[in-house]
Amino acid sequence: MKARVHIMPKQGVLDPQGKAIGHALASLGFSGVGEVRQGKVIDLELSEQDPARARAAVDEMCKRLLANTIIESYRIELEGS
Amino acid sequence: MKARVHIMPKQGVLDPQGKAIGHALASLGFSGVGEVRQGKVIDLELSEQDPARARAAVDEMCKRLLANTIIESYRIELEGS
Amino acid sequence: MKARVHIMPKQGVLDPQGKAIGHALASLGFSGVGEVRQGKVIDLELSEQDPARARAAVDEMCKRLLANTIIESYRIELEGS
Amino acid sequence: MKARVHIMPKQGVLDPQGKAIGHALASLGFSGVGEVRQGKVIDLELSEQDPARARAAVDEMCKRLLANTIIESYRIELEGS
Repeated sequence: MKARVHIMPKQGVLDPQGKAIGHALASLGFSGVGEVRQGKVIDLELSEQDPARARAAVDEMCKRLLANTIIESYRIELEGS
Repeated sequence: MKARVHIMPKQGVLDPQGKAIGHALASLGFSGVGEVRQGKVIDLELSEQDPARARAAVDEMCKRLLANTIIESYRIELEGS
Repeated sequence: MKARVHIMPKQGVLDPQGKAIGHALASLGFSGVGEVRQGKVIDLELSEQDPARARAAVDEMCKRLLANTIIESYRIELEGS
Repeated sequence: MKARVHIMPKQGVLDPQGKAIGHALASLGFSGVGEVRQGKVIDLELSEQDPARARAAVDEMCKRLLANTIIESYRIELEGS
């Protein structure tokens, strides 16, 4: 089973990389671009076959290692089974 | 309209951050974790309302700025309309 | 003139990537590694020749774009002149 | 002993984040900024007291985990002793 985790800066947390991209797109002539936010995506291959247990394990990985939950939010997607 | 871009190291390109996460998960006692890959996710707010034009614009942003297409692949998702 | 900016998570701010590297080094058999912190480094080429003005400009770049000063500290080094 | 590792994209490797920062600085009105490159910096606390052995250990960490030496170069600094 594959899991994908999105880790984004929380609303209200400044995101210098997103801001840099927004300004850069404007300077390259792309118009109509509003807020830009940059986060991380982590893809994991898991031997676990049970979706509920896989999700619980990845949730614990996020809390213990992958995300700084003070400033980042995360979302887990499971693919296949 | 919102667009989300996933930018991942291409297959075959070493990914030290993904590798570090994989080893770290093992040392924390998470078993059954195979390959781990880390990439970037970029969320953009676009004033463009037409999905085809929005996708074309984001594709150009990826090629001109967001991705290093030699070593990274990207995928665009549009939300809403 | 070249400037180098180091941007690090402030003391007390969790650093998941540093933590992942620390665990990964342990699992690879590297012993005696204490805290690990990961930050960003940004190298800039500047046409400005005056060190004081160059430093002031880079300081303003950090505050306005490069760093999230709530959670990150930064340090500027100038090379050459 | 503390070690600091700088990991930069090699000359000739595209660096989308550095490029984004360069464009963003221009759009914010900073003039006279030439090439911008973004890399990573990793700070490590080491129990090793011997500088030569510390450097050798960190060099091996870079090769085995921290850097993708196909596309990144790294430089090690030791502080204190």
